[in-house]
Amino acid sequence: MTQYKVPVLPGDGIGPEIIAEGKKVIDAAGERFGFDVEWIEYPHGADHYLKTGELISEETLKELSGYPAIYLGSIGDPRIAPGVLEKGILLTARFYFDQYINLRPIKLLEGVWTPIKDKTAKDIDFVVVRENTEDFYIGVGGRAKKGESKDLLEVKRTLYSAKFGLDIETDSEEIGYQIGLISKEGTKRVIEYAFDLAENRKKHVSSVDKANVLSDIYGFWREEFNAVAAAHPDITTDFNFVDAITMWFVKNPEWFDVVVTPNMFGDIITDLGAMIQGGLGLAPGGNINPKGTSMFEPIHGSAPKYKGQNKVNPIATIWAGAMLIEQLGEKEAADTIVNAIQKNILEGKVKTYDMGGKNTTSDVGDDIARIVKGE
Amino acid sequence: MTQYKVPVLPGDGIGPEIIAEGKKVIDAAGERFGFDVEWIEYPHGADHYLKTGELISEETLKELSGYPAIYLGSIGDPRIAPGVLEKGILLTARFYFDQYINLRPIKLLEGVWTPIKDKTAKDIDFVVVRENTEDFYIGVGGRAKKGESKDLLEVKRTLYSAKFGLDIETDSEEIGYQIGLISKEGTKRVIEYAFDLAENRKKHVSSVDKANVLSDIYGFWREEFNAVAAAHPDITTDFNFVDAITMWFVKNPEWFDVVVTPNMFGDIITDLGAMIQGGLGLAPGGNINPKGTSMFEPIHGSAPKYKGQNKVNPIATIWAGAMLIEQLGEKEAADTIVNAIQKNILEGKVKTYDMGGKNTTSDVGDDIARIVKGE
Ligand SMILES: CC(C)[C@H](C(=O)O)[C@@H](O)C(=O)O
Ligand SMILES: CC(C)[C@H](C(=O)O)[C@@H](O)C(=O)O
Repeated sequence: MTQYKVPVLPGDGIGPEIIAEGKKVIDAAGERFGFDVEWIEYPHGADHYLKTGELISEETLKELSGYPAIYLGSIGDPRIAPGVLEKGILLTARFYFDQYINLRPIKLLEGVWTPIKDKTAKDIDFVVVRENTEDFYIGVGGRAKKGESKDLLEVKRTLYSAKFGLDIETDSEEIGYQIGLISKEGTKRVIEYAFDLAENRKKHVSSVDKANVLSDIYGFWREEFNAVAAAHPDITTDFNFVDAITMWFVKNPEWFDVVVTPNMFGDIITDLGAMIQGGLGLAPGGNINPKGTSMFEPIHGSAPKYKGQNKVNPIATIWAGAMLIEQLGEKEAADTIVNAIQKNILEGKVKTYDMGGKNTTSDVGDDIARIVKGE
Repeated sequence: MTQYKVPVLPGDGIGPEIIAEGKKVIDAAGERFGFDVEWIEYPHGADHYLKTGELISEETLKELSGYPAIYLGSIGDPRIAPGVLEKGILLTARFYFDQYINLRPIKLLEGVWTPIKDKTAKDIDFVVVRENTEDFYIGVGGRAKKGESKDLLEVKRTLYSAKFGLDIETDSEEIGYQIGLISKEGTKRVIEYAFDLAENRKKHVSSVDKANVLSDIYGFWREEFNAVAAAHPDITTDFNFVDAITMWFVKNPEWFDVVVTPNMFGDIITDLGAMIQGGLGLAPGGNINPKGTSMFEPIHGSAPKYKGQNKVNPIATIWAGAMLIEQLGEKEAADTIVNAIQKNILEGKVKTYDMGGKNTTSDVGDDIARIVKGE
């Protein structure tokens, strides 16, 4: 019997409820495929923060870095200002473990309702590879008051004057600014991952950027993309401006196979992707460091208003669990879980409110666990 | 007879074809409502640039600033690197004339096919107010090589080390970076415009940001939003993270009335908005400086592959023309044009390929001009 140890951070809001179902289904797969998971619970999230003042300590992160995969529920609480928990726990983990790939399958399962007309499961089946440690997510920015930080107030003036020899009459009393950066290595490795993925799929990689306006950062991205593409002559490619790709996701999702994107645009287009695959209740994600510690989570938030109601859809979390055990090497068990999700949906008897059903979170977990065990 | 002078930049690709129809329809409205437009043609765009090396000169901009409204076709050409024409002409004009409002109605006309299920004209009827002169559009960024620009290479190091006392073992050989900034005045004025608009609509304003991650720039945006909101107690408001709003545009467009957004996110969500209102062929936009020179354009690009075929849909451009004459004070004529577009669509006899028809660009312009004249 193979033994795995997996740290779990159920997190906030509905996190504990959905994670319970994810563990249940993985345990069922373990029974069937001969592995056992020891779940190691971590309390991090809103309550822990309010009680102790700790978001997540370096000590805990070091400890977690001893494991190949972490199972995460959801982070976020209305009592705490936007960003504190998300940055202090979720983004900290992504950065600390250098999880440079955020892998998000956009797959419409059969029998799932999509808000998009005339598209079926065969049309919506691609994967987004989102860069996960750079870009505008590095958290570098600030404010400047007039006279206080000449450099930054000069930025705007310089821009105009370089172009037209104009002088701006008044500068703003105050500005807010943000800096994004991408590195050569950081860009290359995630694009390479996308091309490797495409080798085993439909051999097409789509790049996302806004190189016509944010030319410095994304012109650089394009160069790296072209360099990697040159090493993969069998893979076809295309470039998409981020504004345009939101249209194609809705109008022509069948065009896509592997989409690789800088971090921030990836955040935006994968939420849209989640919607076309049937909603956030059905969208899993993996934060992956192939040689380090990865972390799997539903891409939805903590839905505080549903907390404790045993009401929300656990499928995204269960699907993320399948990705987790695939990462551990249990490919057959992972496929069995995804197939069980598909079967639960096609049978259509046990489903949560978002899919038009009346069942509870745990009913759905039970049903999928049953199917996994082959009962 | 009121006389107007309107500069026209037909631009590249299909630009001249669609602008011809826009002028035709405005001229028809002039006949009916007793005004006359003298069109002053400007050659700026790809051909002019390739011939003369000029994008748009300060002299030309100064000359254009003598007019209240400019009519723009579309800019962009495959012979020229992405960004050169867009930044050198379109964004230059937006910045030079300080057109701080980019107004984009997201309105599904009756009889238009939308890719979204279960939504009709009454569900998709809102307006996006996009900030248009700041944010990541200021064009400030660059590259740095290891050792060359310590400051910027230190950014990433600082980020990690401040958090965890870590030292990054290797720094990148090269980075690309980009800076965005918003000013207090620049943010306030566009949010105020949005609230004023909502006063005459359904009295609801939705803000878009990503304050949980890009906290410096968009935390600032939120503060300004709250300050303006406090002065409008009769208007209800909500905050939307940009990733989430792409989902609601598709799933619940009926939630929105006026959406106000920083520049870059506005670029992204208005393309998605264009898609849910039936596609780029139907989406107009206005770059507005209420006390200066405004500029009206379809939000689509120059579609080079259709150039010279008299094939594409001119409705976005005709609608932008309606916005233009409304800006000049011809409200009744503007409404008449929008109603004529609606009537052309409902009659369903004269339409371009994208709407399932076989007519030409000029057929559609003729038909709408006919309706405008009341023939
Ligand atoms: C919660 C938030 C910080 C996060 C992100 O922006 O990455 C989320 O939206 C996601 O996509 O995982
Ligand atoms: C062409 C491009 C520079 C422009 C923009 O990004 O603003 C376009 O996408 C738009 O939305 O008007």
